[in-house]
Amino acid sequence: MADRMSFWAWGLESEEPTDADRNAMANQLSERYGVEVTAKPIPDLADAELRPPRITPPDNLAEFCFTDTYERARHAGGAHFTDRTRAFNLDFPNPPDVVSHPRTEGELEAILDWCHEGGHAAVPFGAGSSVVWGVAPPDTPTSVTIAMDRFDQVLEIDETSRAARIQAGVYGPALEAQLKPSGHTLRHFPQSFRFSTLGGWIATRSGGHYATNHTHIDDFVESIRMLTPNGWWESRRLPGSGAGPSPDRMVIGSEGILGIISEAWMRIQARPTFRATAGVVFDSWYAGTDAVRQIVQAKLWPANLRILDPAEAGRAAGLEGDQALVIIAFESAELSQAAAIAAAVEIARGAGGHIDDDNIVIDDGTGSPTGHEGAVGEWRRSFIGVDPGTATSMGVLADTFETSITWDRWPDFDATVREEMGRVLAEVCSKGELSCRFTHVYPDGPAPYYTWSGMGRQGSEISMWQEVKDAANEVVVRAGGTSTHHHAVGRMHRPNAYDVQRPDLFADSIRAVKRTLDPNGILNPGVLIDP
Amino acid sequence: MADRMSFWAWGLESEEPTDADRNAMANQLSERYGVEVTAKPIPDLADAELRPPRITPPDNLAEFCFTDTYERARHAGGAHFTDRTRAFNLDFPNPPDVVSHPRTEGELEAILDWCHEGGHAAVPFGAGSSVVWGVAPPDTPTSVTIAMDRFDQVLEIDETSRAARIQAGVYGPALEAQLKPSGHTLRHFPQSFRFSTLGGWIATRSGGHYATNHTHIDDFVESIRMLTPNGWWESRRLPGSGAGPSPDRMVIGSEGILGIISEAWMRIQARPTFRATAGVVFDSWYAGTDAVRQIVQAKLWPANLRILDPAEAGRAAGLEGDQALVIIAFESAELSQAAAIAAAVEIARGAGGHIDDDNIVIDDGTGSPTGHEGAVGEWRRSFIGVDPGTATSMGVLADTFETSITWDRWPDFDATVREEMGRVLAEVCSKGELSCRFTHVYPDGPAPYYTWSGMGRQGSEISMWQEVKDAANEVVVRAGGTSTHHHAVGRMHRPNAYDVQRPDLFADSIRAVKRTLDPNGILNPGVLIDP
Repeated sequence: MADRMSFWAWGLESEEPTDADRNAMANQLSERYGVEVTAKPIPDLADAELRPPRITPPDNLAEFCFTDTYERARHAGGAHFTDRTRAFNLDFPNPPDVVSHPRTEGELEAILDWCHEGGHAAVPFGAGSSVVWGVAPPDTPTSVTIAMDRFDQVLEIDETSRAARIQAGVYGPALEAQLKPSGHTLRHFPQSFRFSTLGGWIATRSGGHYATNHTHIDDFVESIRMLTPNGWWESRRLPGSGAGPSPDRMVIGSEGILGIISEAWMRIQARPTFRATAGVVFDSWYAGTDAVRQIVQAKLWPANLRILDPAEAGRAAGLEGDQALVIIAFESAELSQAAAIAAAVEIARGAGGHIDDDNIVIDDGTGSPTGHEGAVGEWRRSFIGVDPGTATSMGVLADTFETSITWDRWPDFDATVREEMGRVLAEVCSKGELSCRFTHVYPDGPAPYYTWSGMGRQGSEISMWQEVKDAANEVVVRAGGTSTHHHAVGRMHRPNAYDVQRPDLFADSIRAVKRTLDPNGILNPGVLIDP
Repeated sequence: MADRMSFWAWGLESEEPTDADRNAMANQLSERYGVEVTAKPIPDLADAELRPPRITPPDNLAEFCFTDTYERARHAGGAHFTDRTRAFNLDFPNPPDVVSHPRTEGELEAILDWCHEGGHAAVPFGAGSSVVWGVAPPDTPTSVTIAMDRFDQVLEIDETSRAARIQAGVYGPALEAQLKPSGHTLRHFPQSFRFSTLGGWIATRSGGHYATNHTHIDDFVESIRMLTPNGWWESRRLPGSGAGPSPDRMVIGSEGILGIISEAWMRIQARPTFRATAGVVFDSWYAGTDAVRQIVQAKLWPANLRILDPAEAGRAAGLEGDQALVIIAFESAELSQAAAIAAAVEIARGAGGHIDDDNIVIDDGTGSPTGHEGAVGEWRRSFIGVDPGTATSMGVLADTFETSITWDRWPDFDATVREEMGRVLAEVCSKGELSCRFTHVYPDGPAPYYTWSGMGRQGSEISMWQEVKDAANEVVVRAGGTSTHHHAVGRMHRPNAYDVQRPDLFADSIRAVKRTLDPNGILNPGVLIDP
């Protein structure tokens, strides 16, 4: 049997941790937190008891519709801590009744028609990396997952315009593999890259790992083809347009409530060959963030411009824990980046940063990547690596939340978040920790990304996590941030976050658009807006 | 009396051409086209016969509502050739009944409420530079213009975030004058800069005169405050967000049909001091456009990257008429642009361009602007200068149209446009001419801007122009372009252009949004969509 996605861990079945890995982790955690932690054995899906499907697809859909336990369990949720904890515990209270994998636009039309006519909730599904409860079936009488993973081809490459027509269900690595032979890249690398799709990126306004200038998927979309219950929506391929509000910007971020993206023309790029990287150390977190502000406002447009706070720089980049690390990197397919990195480092030094000239790595086109050595390299490996589930269901609470805020409110925003999160972590868990880095930086403000963890009680992970999340949602929006900068809204960021933040008339407007495109309200109900 | 806008010419009353100017122009035209041209005397508004106002505002609005002939004539249309020809002829068949100039948000609410409750069409008006019939009153039983020119203040400057809260009715020069003391600029300079407003730029997706990277008003909007008939819509100030579809992107380009923008937080910039400019000559138009493609795809992000075709380079930049001119310019507040311009010039030379090293002008921070000498300087003066109306109503037909197209369809697109326009110009006028330049350039395609003129019959200018315009609308969209890249849709680009181009379901969606925000359908009816 071909390797397939684990139904509970982050990654493929072949990458699942073993019981031995988990027993070792349990011992580590027991020592670290001073409580007894036991490693429940890795679950066997054969033991899961799923509610029987409440509907059966008609014969004409049978060839690409599935109701077996693996398919329904795999598509019962996303990749969030809570999803993985539930799956590990074989807790599938609300799996989809049917999981479809349409292979053609005809099949996509057929399955959506069936949902539309039967009033079955239809949940578009890319690769399932949602960490915001964006792909779990809603609490409706019936539900059907529409998994797009067979729409996995780069259909056309326009080398002159540097654009490609790409099917929505292609996973990150397969997309890049198809672009590489012609020397191109989409150059969009969210942390979920391995297990996320183009359509998912567009539907959730994904942020790539590049820190400045064009990095969001929004910037790379040239046109979109989307199926709605009322028919096809296709925008014209254009490099730029001032003809009314942008149709694409209505789709980008719509999280599957307006239609299912079938394919898109995307702006691609020549693969970079010139690189330059520097890691600059700061004795103070806020001196470091101010350096980042000065660099981004100089409009040098570095490919990477991040800062790790002392806790994160200690944990992920091998620093001592009392210094912040600013990572600066430039890339180009055309030109040496030596002058650009020198200018950025000069600004960083002027703002109090330390770096030896020897530690500025410049690669003028040899093609060997920079940024793999020293503290920067250590951070890079930590960024790419995601624990597949070695500690799942052992009482550890852990999550991230991310936002953006204008510079004038930083660092007060950070202080407010830390105070509130410190309070709730102390209440809910033991040895709670919080750290922060910037994932993206704009001339008018940073996108701070907070990581927290602490020890809860085994078996109560989800309810304890919820207490912390409620506080995080509330404080981020109260202090002026956005409920999400690139993780999307889903159902998780709704009531006390997104619903507080967006203009009420905008929510009314999106509801009106949804009624127009999806009159029976079948598409991903409960995500983004209430019906 | 203070200088005020001419009711018929482009500019202030003090800048109107004189009868002597116009007589001289008539002689020139007679010679050039070999027909007899007469200069009708400059009109006196006292001779205009306007339909009496069909409604009277209630007392509480009287202080900021006007019904005098100047106000109603001045606000009867925009700045297009057809508007100015009609105004010159004192032809005002459908002036607004009332022109309001609210001074506060309270007054704005009061006037919009009155329109909403009475069912009076409400036309938001910035400075009236629309060239697409976007501010003319619709053919409705009653109409009220809501002129925003008293909302003319920069209310707040956030120097840390480089952002400013700015009222929507401020004209370009007043906006820049208020930002300048703190060393900032919005750096958004559409050709209409002197007589257009921030709110108008946002409502029409204005393009600045910078050619690459961030130049569209879309990129500078941080948040928007807008009044709709159903209440206030205000987005949160954020440097970036992935929380659902962007509320601002629904407003940007909405052309006054969803609400009236009151103010916006805008991203501002440090004033540039480093500059570099080069004009590169090409023996072939398409060799030049290919050089432009290569430069923009190198992602050097020049502030200016334009090409004038041989006709335009001859007329506007003093070249011989058989060579194209590529204008390249870089700007920065922080860094020398010498390396960047060298890299761009190298690409241009590799693509067949000619320039002496002596003609590359580099200014490393002295603050004296480059780009004012030679062919580039000549083009710059021609760009800034707009004929105020010296030739109005003398039978000359003249207009521009602009679009964007992906590189793979260029130059075929250009050939198709030239063929069709050549055909229609030959049919409609004598000595018809067409020229082209790029106003903006993207990695995936250019934004070509066509200028045409020819001699028609005096008195029949508008109907003859319409024949040419119909052909231009049709060919641009048929050949794959957008109906407008930065002039907006208005009513002029509707039936055979925008309506063909946009997804039908998107038009349905915008209609649904409009019904939500403006249930009585009073805001700018007929612009963008039919009710």
